[in-house]
Amino acid sequence: MEASAATAIMSPSEFELIERYFNSVFSQGLSPGISLGIGDDAAVISPAAGQQGCICTDVLVADVHFPAAADPSDIAQRALRVNLSDLAAMGATPVCFTLGLTLPAADEEWLSHFAAGLFAAANRFDCPLVGGDTTRGPLNIAITVYGEVPVGEALRRSGAKEGDSVFVTGSLGKGRTALEALGLGKTGENTDAIEAVKGFRDIKRSDMTPGYKDFLYQCFYQPEPRLTFASAARQYINSAIDLSDGLYADLGHLARASGQAMHVDAGALPFAEAVIALTDSAQRQSAALFGGDDYEICFTAAVDSAPALELIAAESEVVITCIGEVAAGTGVTVRDDGNIVSMEGNHGFDHFRGAEK
Amino acid sequence: MEASAATAIMSPSEFELIERYFNSVFSQGLSPGISLGIGDDAAVISPAAGQQGCICTDVLVADVHFPAAADPSDIAQRALRVNLSDLAAMGATPVCFTLGLTLPAADEEWLSHFAAGLFAAANRFDCPLVGGDTTRGPLNIAITVYGEVPVGEALRRSGAKEGDSVFVTGSLGKGRTALEALGLGKTGENTDAIEAVKGFRDIKRSDMTPGYKDFLYQCFYQPEPRLTFASAARQYINSAIDLSDGLYADLGHLARASGQAMHVDAGALPFAEAVIALTDSAQRQSAALFGGDDYEICFTAAVDSAPALELIAAESEVVITCIGEVAAGTGVTVRDDGNIVSMEGNHGFDHFRGAEK
Repeated sequence: MEASAATAIMSPSEFELIERYFNSVFSQGLSPGISLGIGDDAAVISPAAGQQGCICTDVLVADVHFPAAADPSDIAQRALRVNLSDLAAMGATPVCFTLGLTLPAADEEWLSHFAAGLFAAANRFDCPLVGGDTTRGPLNIAITVYGEVPVGEALRRSGAKEGDSVFVTGSLGKGRTALEALGLGKTGENTDAIEAVKGFRDIKRSDMTPGYKDFLYQCFYQPEPRLTFASAARQYINSAIDLSDGLYADLGHLARASGQAMHVDAGALPFAEAVIALTDSAQRQSAALFGGDDYEICFTAAVDSAPALELIAAESEVVITCIGEVAAGTGVTVRDDGNIVSMEGNHGFDHFRGAEK
Repeated sequence: MEASAATAIMSPSEFELIERYFNSVFSQGLSPGISLGIGDDAAVISPAAGQQGCICTDVLVADVHFPAAADPSDIAQRALRVNLSDLAAMGATPVCFTLGLTLPAADEEWLSHFAAGLFAAANRFDCPLVGGDTTRGPLNIAITVYGEVPVGEALRRSGAKEGDSVFVTGSLGKGRTALEALGLGKTGENTDAIEAVKGFRDIKRSDMTPGYKDFLYQCFYQPEPRLTFASAARQYINSAIDLSDGLYADLGHLARASGQAMHVDAGALPFAEAVIALTDSAQRQSAALFGGDDYEICFTAAVDSAPALELIAAESEVVITCIGEVAAGTGVTVRDDGNIVSMEGNHGFDHFRGAEK
């Protein structure tokens, strides 16, 4: 009702945009845990009995985390899935999310595709949008997800025990390989994404197939948060972290938080067929350790939990691989064929430094 | 431990920045409701018995919501307070918040001031930072606050009843007057903030005093979220909304959500001394109705609740003013001396349109 005579001939307002694309799309059917969804000053969540809340925020910036010209539906999928991967690392189940969306212009076509991708991901993971803020500025997507985990059962970085096996879900190096193989780092205006692939020697583009391309595109824009597995395997897991910055940096966080050392066997790192076909072994090792963007869960568990974990993984249709062990000490040591791999000058992807090798 | 020989001579990494300025500042002492704070994949919140969670997100963009060159401590204060005002409008009590911070460069001085302002506001409102994400890009601050409210007691926009009185806390028009009087809309590179003040005729700058200037600066950068009052007055309030876009637009939301009409007496709108001194009556009326950025609570309550509300307001050291009534019908009608004020071409501040009159 704030519409005035002038409104009709003007571009859609902030309110109208939010309403048209988000309220309408997301207002159908609230989950049991949501007492009040989008459209008020805040959403109201009713915690289930015996549950704690988990909350985390990830920001995706155009030409840093994705090419600005990417399909808005893909951008939205990636933005929500990357956040949900953090919830998976806690062993939590998604409840809802909020969206802080900054857009250069009120482009209806862009917004409708973005909303479609967001809605598809929200539906897929049963995690409705409950609120947010849309404003004008350089493209920036800040998503906060809220999930639940039974009291005292949240997976932490700090629980790794000496003698634990170190596991990862899925496969590694695909995020960085996708960035390179699909030229994603070279589409942007911003130098950050370009910097990110500088150190990665040319992959075997000639071996690219349509199947590999689809796989890598999917890996980059629709990473699969390991929610089902992590939630089901919670009782067997001593510590866990989401792999977003590269295994070396992320395992470093586990090591530091747990006061333990992490020993990794480079030969055990799991790779998808597309990554194996398009990279040499040094490239894929580097992509796994330092490339980032894999959104798998790295976790530690007692050696004798392996059979139970394998069973849960199979039921969750996820492959898990033991890649090393937790030992007394500090830091992360990577061995290849028994020889310690020098980490001199290497580190995970870092948005403030770019990645140099 | 991801530090390598190369790290020492490089600019601080994303991890180091986050750790130095946020983890260290915010890690001392968790509130009872926070089981796991900053530094893991997500924070873990333990809901108090009988409480529901309230969650909301606001984004502040440089040169749209504040001048990019503003004191980072002030920017941080404003960013958190503006979000807390949404929680106040729900009658909720803050529990914690997350920060999605996008920065053009890893500027230590900027970050340390920003963290100091954020910490001051977090402390003041007992709302600790529990997580977030820092990345590189154009300055953008996305804050998500989480609060609690007793089950079933959250204040909604939809509860206004015919015959209710319409109240506002504090005074109006100060956000827009500050923008103009302090020249905040003219410091930025971006045209948005400049557009925002275009329609506001020159204020009486010659009547500015240091006291008025301080007051308006405070209003803009440290708006006072009405948490104490709204939480204490919850049982008497039928509907409520945070005044961020201007009274006319925000009352419009109340009217629509409640299926009622809102009648406003322009002569009853409360103004601070500085606003009265620096504006003529048409200017301040326009600032209140369309200027936005006031971060007061507009609420409706039964006529006979007024004495109880006045008492709670006095105890909370907040002034409340009855500015109109809820009637059968739709939309917002403003009367000045009994005559209906035409709203032709007028609307609240809108980031996608600028504000034109």
